[in-house]
Amino acid sequence: MSETPPVTDRIREAYAPENLRLLGHRLVDVLAEHLDGVEQSRGRVLNWNDPAENRVVASDRLDAPKNAALVEAFERAAATVLSRGQNLHDPRYVGHQVPAPVPLAGLFDAIGSVTNQVMAIYEMGPFVSAVEEVLVERLGARIGYQPGTFAGFATHGGSLANLTALLTARNVLLGDSYEAGVPSKGPRPVIVSHAEAHYCISRSAGILGLGTNQVVKAELDDRRRIDPQRLDETLGRLRAENVPIVAVAAGACATPIGAFDPLNDLADVCERHKVWLHVDAAHGGAALFSQTHRHLLDGLQRADSLIWDAHKMLFVPALCAFVFYRDREHRFRAFHQDAPYLFDPSAPELIEADSGLKTIECTKRAAALPLWGVWSLFGPELFGDLVDRTFALGRAFHQKLQAADDFEPLHEPECNIVAFRHRPERLQHATPAEVGSFQLELRKRVIRSGAYYLVPTSKDGTGALRVTLINPLTTPDHLDGLLATLREEGERLLDGR
Amino acid sequence: MSETPPVTDRIREAYAPENLRLLGHRLVDVLAEHLDGVEQSRGRVLNWNDPAENRVVASDRLDAPKNAALVEAFERAAATVLSRGQNLHDPRYVGHQVPAPVPLAGLFDAIGSVTNQVMAIYEMGPFVSAVEEVLVERLGARIGYQPGTFAGFATHGGSLANLTALLTARNVLLGDSYEAGVPSKGPRPVIVSHAEAHYCISRSAGILGLGTNQVVKAELDDRRRIDPQRLDETLGRLRAENVPIVAVAAGACATPIGAFDPLNDLADVCERHKVWLHVDAAHGGAALFSQTHRHLLDGLQRADSLIWDAHKMLFVPALCAFVFYRDREHRFRAFHQDAPYLFDPSAPELIEADSGLKTIECTKRAAALPLWGVWSLFGPELFGDLVDRTFALGRAFHQKLQAADDFEPLHEPECNIVAFRHRPERLQHATPAEVGSFQLELRKRVIRSGAYYLVPTSKDGTGALRVTLINPLTTPDHLDGLLATLREEGERLLDGR
Repeated sequence: MSETPPVTDRIREAYAPENLRLLGHRLVDVLAEHLDGVEQSRGRVLNWNDPAENRVVASDRLDAPKNAALVEAFERAAATVLSRGQNLHDPRYVGHQVPAPVPLAGLFDAIGSVTNQVMAIYEMGPFVSAVEEVLVERLGARIGYQPGTFAGFATHGGSLANLTALLTARNVLLGDSYEAGVPSKGPRPVIVSHAEAHYCISRSAGILGLGTNQVVKAELDDRRRIDPQRLDETLGRLRAENVPIVAVAAGACATPIGAFDPLNDLADVCERHKVWLHVDAAHGGAALFSQTHRHLLDGLQRADSLIWDAHKMLFVPALCAFVFYRDREHRFRAFHQDAPYLFDPSAPELIEADSGLKTIECTKRAAALPLWGVWSLFGPELFGDLVDRTFALGRAFHQKLQAADDFEPLHEPECNIVAFRHRPERLQHATPAEVGSFQLELRKRVIRSGAYYLVPTSKDGTGALRVTLINPLTTPDHLDGLLATLREEGERLLDGR
Repeated sequence: MSETPPVTDRIREAYAPENLRLLGHRLVDVLAEHLDGVEQSRGRVLNWNDPAENRVVASDRLDAPKNAALVEAFERAAATVLSRGQNLHDPRYVGHQVPAPVPLAGLFDAIGSVTNQVMAIYEMGPFVSAVEEVLVERLGARIGYQPGTFAGFATHGGSLANLTALLTARNVLLGDSYEAGVPSKGPRPVIVSHAEAHYCISRSAGILGLGTNQVVKAELDDRRRIDPQRLDETLGRLRAENVPIVAVAAGACATPIGAFDPLNDLADVCERHKVWLHVDAAHGGAALFSQTHRHLLDGLQRADSLIWDAHKMLFVPALCAFVFYRDREHRFRAFHQDAPYLFDPSAPELIEADSGLKTIECTKRAAALPLWGVWSLFGPELFGDLVDRTFALGRAFHQKLQAADDFEPLHEPECNIVAFRHRPERLQHATPAEVGSFQLELRKRVIRSGAYYLVPTSKDGTGALRVTLINPLTTPDHLDGLLATLREEGERLLDGR
């Protein structure tokens, strides 16, 4: 027998339950204190540092001597991460479609993470697999599906979710394209997409071998929603030219201004032309939990596929995106494979519970566990509260913009996304390009100061500002403060200070 | 002004730092106690329950009344997850290529999760973005790349990593295939793959529009490694037929028996034919941290692209997979897109730090943070210790199999993966099919009893058993125990008990 190398002291320390206890308790205190300060805006929203500087600090920690006490080294590492991060829980965070998550959700994530409950095969994470299935059932019921008729799963993000759903649509339309490749005869297949869809729809066309040039932009109405009448014409023209149509990709809502497509009308058009309707409801799906706003999703249950990110408006940490197929028969159409060391031929009944047959991931985190945990503690009513609160903040902000002489909202908000520009009087003779540059420079100054965090966008080729109200602790007062900050910083910028 | 719905009591409770503190401390005690019991094998490895039963339990917790004290509801939810899960930290876990992770890594995951530090844009997670870049530099140096000449990033799993790398290879070879689609003229492009590569290589061909039929299996030698001489012939034949070759996909190591391809020889062949060499080093990359085993990866630095899963042999929780390109110029070749609301045209210098331009994910978890945390606490030597320990356990297990009359190892192990069969004397006249069924039935009984966890595989079409020694707390005594358990349970199975 050869000699087996020992469990070294390093291994022993790393795996000792007592160290998990010791460092865990320290972490909880550090996190709770941090959260308290952030929620009360005691520091900066974004802790801006240049990438090069952060790299030096990150690198230094790796090289730090390992003879220090473990708890001290851990505290230093944790403090470094927290003091240099983005603070989504600061009510002045009004940025991307990434929420200030329910902090307790992170504790459920930690259960999955410390014990490494994973999926692909039911055996490897039996309970977390069941958790995901139960959430698919619950969310499916909200969508309006009948039990037993639909299918779904969780995956790592909206881009991956859209890719998987569109892959299924491609395979369903183009028979053996999975095995034989995208067909090389006749007109090339297209995806008809909301003209302002998230970039991942076009990317999917690029990845799937269709080509980004094969994305046909659906024309929009004056509220930047797909126009059903013009979609009907587009599909009719494509059909007349024998162009295979993989899917119509609609949005609920589209990212730039949060426009919700008229899903029932689009479903009518798609049914008439026998085209797969896919809906990116990454952001808006959560409105199904709100009595006030669920009408925005009328017709969603008619989509052939849809995606819904729990890590957006269900307020759990990244990443947990759901894919749904209206027809349960489509659940295995994305892939076909054989892997005897994974899927057990002696237990074929488990195939329905093995997530790896449905997702791009083989090993998959217990991505749905935080959602299950939050739901189990607070019930689905919490999600309704969060949607109502943040959507209303969107409307409140719009009203403030309208009431101000020096701000210009760019649309009526349908949800918690609002695009706008600051137009101080001193800029009244500026060119559109100058106005656009002003917005972007102004934003950069504001976010790097740590006073607020908002994001850039553009409309008609000109730079603009955009907020997502995605922290329920933000109040109308904070929104007044944002306008005041933009005015002050704008003055300084125009003064060349 | 319309009235903004209030911050409800539910929202207040969910976001209260004091509740994070209260529940967090309870969780730490629960997790530490659980880990202690698991590491000492006080319970079952796998807590087997049927999917239907687990679904009922998962569903019940969602419907539980919400009037209980928060801490009690949380404890009950946590206990439910832990009592019905898979226990990777039990030394009798010898299953899939998913490790018993360093428990402290989960604490770093919790920092990212509770505060929701994400990527896509540097601004959204500045420090965690830097952490990922620094780890790319460190791992790249281990591979043998020169600083400044290569590129890399982290993504959610090996399948996604292989897909992204092969997408890049496709785009580099097939000029405008991203924009125009997979070309429709001439012979269809192929991927030449290790004949026993993970299923995601073939899937990638299916997803990318090439077609799974377009995967050419590279012939293997008697140790199930790609045979360089025969690869040379295959590539020569394909070249003679003008077939475009997207990539040769090699393994380090391939999953079934952990075979490491001869990378230098393959790189010679690929250079000669000017073909992109891709290496799936998901499992084996970590051997670079071992003085004893790093030779298995000689030549890895010559691959055009490679993947390396930290959530396998670097012992962090799922998911953290790295993709590397030898030539830094390839880092943006997977995608091209425009998203003004994301990437800030006023700060073009940040493009290098915005991960979303390189990965399929837009919003991305701070996937590399646990690896950074573990490295910062214990140094890279810990990874060497873990590789040495678990690879040696593989050899020790092989010796035990050889020494036993009633066990048959199916190969010499190169690492910590060992495939074998149990051949009790009572089966000496059984057909191969009967022997295969026996292995699978035996395994099912053993894992559902909770005594050990190992996985099924097949060789030459006949069922077999397979272990991965991926828990450093497993000892040679546990391996003796596994053989004893298989014997006992095998007796009962043959007795029809």
